[in-house]
Amino acid sequence: MKNTFGTNVCITLFGESHGPAVGAVIDGLAPGIEVDPEFIAGQLKHRRPFGKISTSRVEEDCFEILSGVFNGKTTGTPICIVIPNENKNSRDYSETRSLARPGHADYTAYAKYHGYEDYRGGGHFSGRVTAALTAAGAVAIAALRGKGIFIGSHISSCGGVKDRAFEDVGEDIRVLSDKLFAVLDDDAGEKMKAVIAAAAEEGDSVGGVLETAVCGLPAGIGEPWFDNMESVIAHGLFSVPGIKGVQFGAGFDLTDAKGSVFNDLYCMDGSKVVTRGNNNGGINGGISNGMPVVFRCAVKPTPSIYKKQDTVDFFEKKDAEIELKGRHDPAIIHRARVVVDSITALSLCDLLAQRFGTDWLGGGI
Amino acid sequence: MKNTFGTNVCITLFGESHGPAVGAVIDGLAPGIEVDPEFIAGQLKHRRPFGKISTSRVEEDCFEILSGVFNGKTTGTPICIVIPNENKNSRDYSETRSLARPGHADYTAYAKYHGYEDYRGGGHFSGRVTAALTAAGAVAIAALRGKGIFIGSHISSCGGVKDRAFEDVGEDIRVLSDKLFAVLDDDAGEKMKAVIAAAAEEGDSVGGVLETAVCGLPAGIGEPWFDNMESVIAHGLFSVPGIKGVQFGAGFDLTDAKGSVFNDLYCMDGSKVVTRGNNNGGINGGISNGMPVVFRCAVKPTPSIYKKQDTVDFFEKKDAEIELKGRHDPAIIHRARVVVDSITALSLCDLLAQRFGTDWLGGGI
Amino acid sequence: MKNTFGTNVCITLFGESHGPAVGAVIDGLAPGIEVDPEFIAGQLKHRRPFGKISTSRVEEDCFEILSGVFNGKTTGTPICIVIPNENKNSRDYSETRSLARPGHADYTAYAKYHGYEDYRGGGHFSGRVTAALTAAGAVAIAALRGKGIFIGSHISSCGGVKDRAFEDVGEDIRVLSDKLFAVLDDDAGEKMKAVIAAAAEEGDSVGGVLETAVCGLPAGIGEPWFDNMESVIAHGLFSVPGIKGVQFGAGFDLTDAKGSVFNDLYCMDGSKVVTRGNNNGGINGGISNGMPVVFRCAVKPTPSIYKKQDTVDFFEKKDAEIELKGRHDPAIIHRARVVVDSITALSLCDLLAQRFGTDWLGGGI
Amino acid sequence: MKNTFGTNVCITLFGESHGPAVGAVIDGLAPGIEVDPEFIAGQLKHRRPFGKISTSRVEEDCFEILSGVFNGKTTGTPICIVIPNENKNSRDYSETRSLARPGHADYTAYAKYHGYEDYRGGGHFSGRVTAALTAAGAVAIAALRGKGIFIGSHISSCGGVKDRAFEDVGEDIRVLSDKLFAVLDDDAGEKMKAVIAAAAEEGDSVGGVLETAVCGLPAGIGEPWFDNMESVIAHGLFSVPGIKGVQFGAGFDLTDAKGSVFNDLYCMDGSKVVTRGNNNGGINGGISNGMPVVFRCAVKPTPSIYKKQDTVDFFEKKDAEIELKGRHDPAIIHRARVVVDSITALSLCDLLAQRFGTDWLGGGI
Repeated sequence: MKNTFGTNVCITLFGESHGPAVGAVIDGLAPGIEVDPEFIAGQLKHRRPFGKISTSRVEEDCFEILSGVFNGKTTGTPICIVIPNENKNSRDYSETRSLARPGHADYTAYAKYHGYEDYRGGGHFSGRVTAALTAAGAVAIAALRGKGIFIGSHISSCGGVKDRAFEDVGEDIRVLSDKLFAVLDDDAGEKMKAVIAAAAEEGDSVGGVLETAVCGLPAGIGEPWFDNMESVIAHGLFSVPGIKGVQFGAGFDLTDAKGSVFNDLYCMDGSKVVTRGNNNGGINGGISNGMPVVFRCAVKPTPSIYKKQDTVDFFEKKDAEIELKGRHDPAIIHRARVVVDSITALSLCDLLAQRFGTDWLGGGI
Repeated sequence: MKNTFGTNVCITLFGESHGPAVGAVIDGLAPGIEVDPEFIAGQLKHRRPFGKISTSRVEEDCFEILSGVFNGKTTGTPICIVIPNENKNSRDYSETRSLARPGHADYTAYAKYHGYEDYRGGGHFSGRVTAALTAAGAVAIAALRGKGIFIGSHISSCGGVKDRAFEDVGEDIRVLSDKLFAVLDDDAGEKMKAVIAAAAEEGDSVGGVLETAVCGLPAGIGEPWFDNMESVIAHGLFSVPGIKGVQFGAGFDLTDAKGSVFNDLYCMDGSKVVTRGNNNGGINGGISNGMPVVFRCAVKPTPSIYKKQDTVDFFEKKDAEIELKGRHDPAIIHRARVVVDSITALSLCDLLAQRFGTDWLGGGI
Repeated sequence: MKNTFGTNVCITLFGESHGPAVGAVIDGLAPGIEVDPEFIAGQLKHRRPFGKISTSRVEEDCFEILSGVFNGKTTGTPICIVIPNENKNSRDYSETRSLARPGHADYTAYAKYHGYEDYRGGGHFSGRVTAALTAAGAVAIAALRGKGIFIGSHISSCGGVKDRAFEDVGEDIRVLSDKLFAVLDDDAGEKMKAVIAAAAEEGDSVGGVLETAVCGLPAGIGEPWFDNMESVIAHGLFSVPGIKGVQFGAGFDLTDAKGSVFNDLYCMDGSKVVTRGNNNGGINGGISNGMPVVFRCAVKPTPSIYKKQDTVDFFEKKDAEIELKGRHDPAIIHRARVVVDSITALSLCDLLAQRFGTDWLGGGI
Repeated sequence: MKNTFGTNVCITLFGESHGPAVGAVIDGLAPGIEVDPEFIAGQLKHRRPFGKISTSRVEEDCFEILSGVFNGKTTGTPICIVIPNENKNSRDYSETRSLARPGHADYTAYAKYHGYEDYRGGGHFSGRVTAALTAAGAVAIAALRGKGIFIGSHISSCGGVKDRAFEDVGEDIRVLSDKLFAVLDDDAGEKMKAVIAAAAEEGDSVGGVLETAVCGLPAGIGEPWFDNMESVIAHGLFSVPGIKGVQFGAGFDLTDAKGSVFNDLYCMDGSKVVTRGNNNGGINGGISNGMPVVFRCAVKPTPSIYKKQDTVDFFEKKDAEIELKGRHDPAIIHRARVVVDSITALSLCDLLAQRFGTDWLGGGI
């Protein structure tokens, strides 16, 4: 389905970095979910560049809800949210039109679209499109909160600096929700910012790892095999161009361990089935087991750097050099966090709607 | 779509470990693809347990093609392949029906299906279903080979022993295709087998990492955002219950690197655009760039171990102990490899059919 | 999705008329639905040819359930039902391989599959595939009955003879469920059989109109626009090659009437909202209004006739004549009725599962 | 997929009659298709009310293309077209909020959305949404024309007045493309307008039958069973709330005929396989046979009439009366014609893209 993701709750993305607008249509959300423009604006603010560690292309991200919301609540019909592109600066890109920026989708877009693609600023492959994903995700995040399901991500690692792991998941998520730079250990956060600023100084960039947790999800969510929870969430996450890896629970860390070490032993916590340890990340056989769902994403260093790089001219089919101008992020990991939360929320809304029906997330009758 | 995966070429899985059969329906493959029963049997043999490092439940995996093949070639209509379950031994499971085997889907299946699930041997969540996936994948793998596209996986790491990385991808894939225990360095392979055998001896198990490469794929394959190549392949891979992580290219390894290190610089190789290095795993913006597609999967240690483990009785909602009997694998990584190849092949057939149409993979007019 | 139909409850068909078997996979049905092999056999009997008014190719239609049913109930995982082809007689077809039987899919299959299609007896386009649809539909019909939703079809018209219309829908459906030749007025039925027998005598065939009613469906089922109830049901019905028209309620009959005549006026029947008249066929804006859902299907005369017909040889691209041999139906309408019920049931199960979730149709917790 | 239709080329609709805008996202169209704003405007003009035979709510239908078009051509990425709602008059609807307008979706929307629906002017179920469908369809229609495939619909019957049938399909389609009131026989058209005007005078409304033809389509398009051409087109057509019946070729007209009469005999026309007669409407087994695809839609009389009607108050659950005010169409059939063309075009683009791949409809490499 190309730019559409989901079965019962689905999102469709559109837009180019330097076109009139980016936007999203969310279909299948229950009627009666409160839609708070301030919360959406707040989520967009979490995605927006800020300070010395981000691009100087700062946009207001004024969004407009064109449909699907009436009297402050979802109607149950498709919600279209549009975010006009305002601060675009197209002349930065025209000179380098046929030069493949290393790590970017310029050349692959050309191979796919034969030159008809809007090449300015990455076009449809631009991270700009995640602004629409974030606005849409905000509605999903709010819907889940209404059912006691909370999602939070922190920068687990950035430029070699590590944050502490999740401990009290519920409380950690609560704390993260207000932070612009999402770390659990603020000292680590300051070091990360310094690393990013230093990379920016050199005209270089850094990447990192995001760790995400979901709490409040009941056991038994997810479908067998192809629409299992891991497949659905990973499908969504890998849609973000900068994400190159996804692992649930211990993931790659314990592949060398023994089964006796890896297995999460079940025990009762009052009347609730829980596990000691969470190496499976809250998911067995692709279906939630009632423990927090935990996963990590590898975010590659942002490919836009100011150093001169070897490349090719794909019109002329010859070697070339490229030196980027314009305004670029030395890191996107602190901005990507809210995008990951959004994708997670949309994925979960979809699986929950499959399990419990159209109305479950909403205001009911 | 639950047990169905793919858009233009899609596969539907069915079956339970101890039911009459497992099977798959592949729909959308081009007409005119040769279907060689021996090749399918060979692929199934690669998945079958063998020696001291596997379960003693060895099945012949006699498959029957019920539809979609005529005069040795695909017709273009759905191919149903059925593999009867022969060597099943259901009494092993009845005593422990309400005890959640740690790391397995028993409890999550119960939470989802309320006790109606076929609990014997993992039921529909059993790795047994991957036999059907392997048979179906064999048809897809053969179709891709007909177009010069080759897939191979090796055990990159198992129980702490590492194989060498891919070097000459085309040649390495060729070599791997004949090996029952898929390593590039046979000495490493022997050490891995020893580690697996030692774990078996202790009643324990090991996991590992599979590395997969695809060569021959043209640039420009994959759809933007949600049906991009990474999303589609990862979606398929995470359907395998034992896979807990997927990373493309350098993935998690270089998240602490600078962009100037991570970026794959483009250059011309004759008239072909290539990159120096392949940290992006052959994919930019979700679309193939013409380099080998390379990714790794984290395969968790198989959860069936013979040590006594704490668990719960989910009927009685009380703590319990479990001691597995029956026949189990001390490792599945050497068997999972052909499953990963199959999923990759089905994913690529789908994306190629979307791009080039129904007939491209087949015999043409 | 080609041979797959449905979103939350979906069916995948496979098989060729003269291949090893036809079959279906039904995915997404709730766990805990009783599966009665006798009921499935009974539904297949309703589809089976009989007497002088049908083909002499009579098959036992022995079906086998390969998965998804355990202890007599659905598990919630995919149900694969296979019906082996037994009484096939492939030599009847070989001589006429490149002659397009008028009204059949021989030529269009060739245009699509380039000659790789299994041409024997219509191959994958054969009505034989509807045996699998019927077996699958039986499970869906039983599930709906468990929730008080009943479906029935009668031969509204055949060869110029008309049956009476539905009156007491619930009672009429009950009566029809036991009839092999589904008419509400048995005298009309005898006349229809005579017309069919007379056509058979001449080596000719007849068609007709099926009228279907559903009672017990709550108001509010169906999705807006593209997954509305009319679209979903019609999509399914038009998959049957012989069905060339579908109309809901008054459909084409009252297109020349005024709005004041067509409109169904609402009124209260106790605490229930009902309409006087049902020109809209129980559906407004694509969503059920609580009245019986009523629609009609145009079934074209079966194209297999014994008269010599002009045609082309599509290998040689020249004019030719064809004279069919083999065993053919002079009418399929009395057999198609249970196929229409099956498609309707599968469509409704899908829409109900979307609305009320996975478990609603089943045994619950 | 609720408000999304299509597999490879798909459209997503959003918007409410009295919300900020209606719109559509078309995804999967090939890169390089010319997008002519004047042609889109012309198609919208064909849908716009005019003269005495339409509502006085006339809107400019100023559309804005937010994405997917660059330098006047499709890029291959999603095209979002938005049409702001300008001439809305919401006070007309507030008094009658809980009164079910007969024939409308007010009550069914309430049953589905529990009162959260935007009830003004039919909300998301309003015919207003077809403006977006028309704009999107215009792009698809233009793409098909570029490949020699033409679509045209005429008012076959309205208020008892009949137009002549298609004769020279290609020429008839050409003539229709410029007509605001789409009839082949202008005298019949004048009589129809008189009938509509007379109904308007009485505060009543009329319906009719649209007949559509497609020429230039190659043989072999359509998928077997569920994504066959009839299923796909009918699925799309039935999404229009006013369409209550769809028939291909002779449809219901010849259900009482013999097979020997109904069958379309094949013959050669030079090197092309054609049929004498076209009772199958250009489709056999759901796949195009190279003849014109012909079908008819039953358009019910528009339910908005000015006569006092019995109804219910669905808040109070009691009988009531309703007398509509506001601005309504005495007929929509002349406006629906371009909607039918649009749906047909989108359906065909989807099936052609499945068959021939992403690039076929576009500018190529």
